[in-house]
Amino acid sequence: MHKKLFIPGPVEVEKDVLEKLATPMIGHRTKDASDLQREISDKLRKVFHTKEEILLSTSSGTGLLEGAIRSTTAKRAIVISIGAFGKRWYEIAKANNVEADLYEVPWGEAVKAEEVDKLLSTGKYDSIFITHNETSTGVMNPVEEISKVIKKYKDVVWSLDCVSSMAGTKIEVDKLGVDVCITSTQKALALPPGMSICSFSKKAIERAEKVTNRGYYFDLLALYKYLKKKDYQYPSTPSLPHMFALNYRLDKILEEGLENRYKRHKEMAEYVRNWAKENFKLYANENFLSNTLTNVENTKNIDVKDLNKKLGERGFAISDGYGNLKNKTFRIAHMGETTLEDIKELIENINDILGI
Amino acid sequence: MHKKLFIPGPVEVEKDVLEKLATPMIGHRTKDASDLQREISDKLRKVFHTKEEILLSTSSGTGLLEGAIRSTTAKRAIVISIGAFGKRWYEIAKANNVEADLYEVPWGEAVKAEEVDKLLSTGKYDSIFITHNETSTGVMNPVEEISKVIKKYKDVVWSLDCVSSMAGTKIEVDKLGVDVCITSTQKALALPPGMSICSFSKKAIERAEKVTNRGYYFDLLALYKYLKKKDYQYPSTPSLPHMFALNYRLDKILEEGLENRYKRHKEMAEYVRNWAKENFKLYANENFLSNTLTNVENTKNIDVKDLNKKLGERGFAISDGYGNLKNKTFRIAHMGETTLEDIKELIENINDILGI
Repeated sequence: MHKKLFIPGPVEVEKDVLEKLATPMIGHRTKDASDLQREISDKLRKVFHTKEEILLSTSSGTGLLEGAIRSTTAKRAIVISIGAFGKRWYEIAKANNVEADLYEVPWGEAVKAEEVDKLLSTGKYDSIFITHNETSTGVMNPVEEISKVIKKYKDVVWSLDCVSSMAGTKIEVDKLGVDVCITSTQKALALPPGMSICSFSKKAIERAEKVTNRGYYFDLLALYKYLKKKDYQYPSTPSLPHMFALNYRLDKILEEGLENRYKRHKEMAEYVRNWAKENFKLYANENFLSNTLTNVENTKNIDVKDLNKKLGERGFAISDGYGNLKNKTFRIAHMGETTLEDIKELIENINDILGI
Repeated sequence: MHKKLFIPGPVEVEKDVLEKLATPMIGHRTKDASDLQREISDKLRKVFHTKEEILLSTSSGTGLLEGAIRSTTAKRAIVISIGAFGKRWYEIAKANNVEADLYEVPWGEAVKAEEVDKLLSTGKYDSIFITHNETSTGVMNPVEEISKVIKKYKDVVWSLDCVSSMAGTKIEVDKLGVDVCITSTQKALALPPGMSICSFSKKAIERAEKVTNRGYYFDLLALYKYLKKKDYQYPSTPSLPHMFALNYRLDKILEEGLENRYKRHKEMAEYVRNWAKENFKLYANENFLSNTLTNVENTKNIDVKDLNKKLGERGFAISDGYGNLKNKTFRIAHMGETTLEDIKELIENINDILGI
């Protein structure tokens, strides 16, 4: 039996979108391929609220995290971690001999703008890496406040991991001044995994031109230059199935309307939060809750694995706590095409299983 | 109108295989996901004629070329180029600060075993990188002879780019002693682009353990370790659509029978070669012709672009010459699920357009 996914990616994808993956193949060096990527880029610019260029990568989001830290760090990077995925970014830097420091915020908390200011004021860093929405903890960082601080540092290139938030909550890339804003297909964009996306600002381009250790496949400057030279094509052979589905999905997203989409995500988040507060506790600081995922502290000491097994028998799947948080928390994702009705149905089933 | 693809990837994919891409999503940290990757690996071991482990990468083949040269070079790499894709491997090394030398064979020629011997006898290299089948020239390297030489050098780890040949011609990975054998989905495996595959020998594992600059996303050792630790799962979120389709495709390949598949490819190749020799000339040295692609020297000085345009109107696509060979050659791919009947139909149409 198929299980409806309420996990933080892969998310549920509707049949008509899945079917677009099955579009017959075309050559990747044709006008049709150029038109496809150009259309996708134009539509993504609306979702990202940016006028900058959009790069596609046939890889998971981790690939573009690697591309961003290698391509934009000439001197030294500061990686701000508020959970597992922030820490991964630092590990990526180390694995590529990119000079970097890790600043760890306690799990469940967001980073404060003042902390960012203090770090950058040392003058040690020319690039900064922040997770917008951390699915291991359920925290969403206050990027508006952080943006005001980062803007003071003209030489610092800012990469923001919006893998699990883009298209689920408003992220105004140009207004915030984010130089490399990264997402991937299998979260709030409600597509299958297999492709990642980033914006790439002029400031980031200028920086990348000064960096020598950019690598090859994830060299953001090479992706950008090829796109410009070959009229929106990809240096190697891209995942055409994902591009067909992404192009179609973006039409549906713009048809729903971005503001409506953000509102729907907010309503789902609020419903789950209220339920969690009534019956359990929220893991994350209540001032910085994610709009796409809720991390519930398991104060009733339920058997999360058993709950998920029973939910599975009814055709639903949620996530256990991440890593060391296993059974200490459980996570309900409310992103993509999931509706408030879906969420209510899930919660009713959880209530029924737990007898609450 | 859909064009039947006779280009060296993406290739034509049948409807039932495309439809497998549209399988509803599952969690990538579930037993179902483990079972899927394990099944794929077991079947791929048959196609690769290997008992070693199989790694999947959500990326194009270029990604695993990067992974191979970074993960298996501790001292210095020798990259043997017989065309555009061999040269790319060297550029990948340079972009990652991997110590490497490039040995270039004139286009249209294969590398001789003696040349490989001479290079390795210098003792300078602990890794070697060879393209099996070079789609820019139409040459297939004589890997059996090369294998005998490389086996003399116990400390040299051998990576072989079989992106455009695996499953289209017999490559006995273990018998040859190839340590990292790389392919990707959109060539003779007849799937859409978006995933690449490699075998990973014990010798390659031992080498990778001594290499520090392996990077993150394409770190072959990390892919291997995660697969072993998490029972055939992927460190980040893999392209599930490709995995569903690959698993199904492999059943069809094994059903056809590998020997039958190689024979079919050989027959198609011979048909195209004979036609080319009768009407044009073969670009590549006749002793080392590719079984999956024929590069035809444009001795009649036809307008290749115009030919392809007219073919397009009839629902077919072939490839122009690669890079500087544009209009000097044209390329007909005969790989994947293409049949001799398809090839005959294409050739008839070319004859008709050219009036030959």
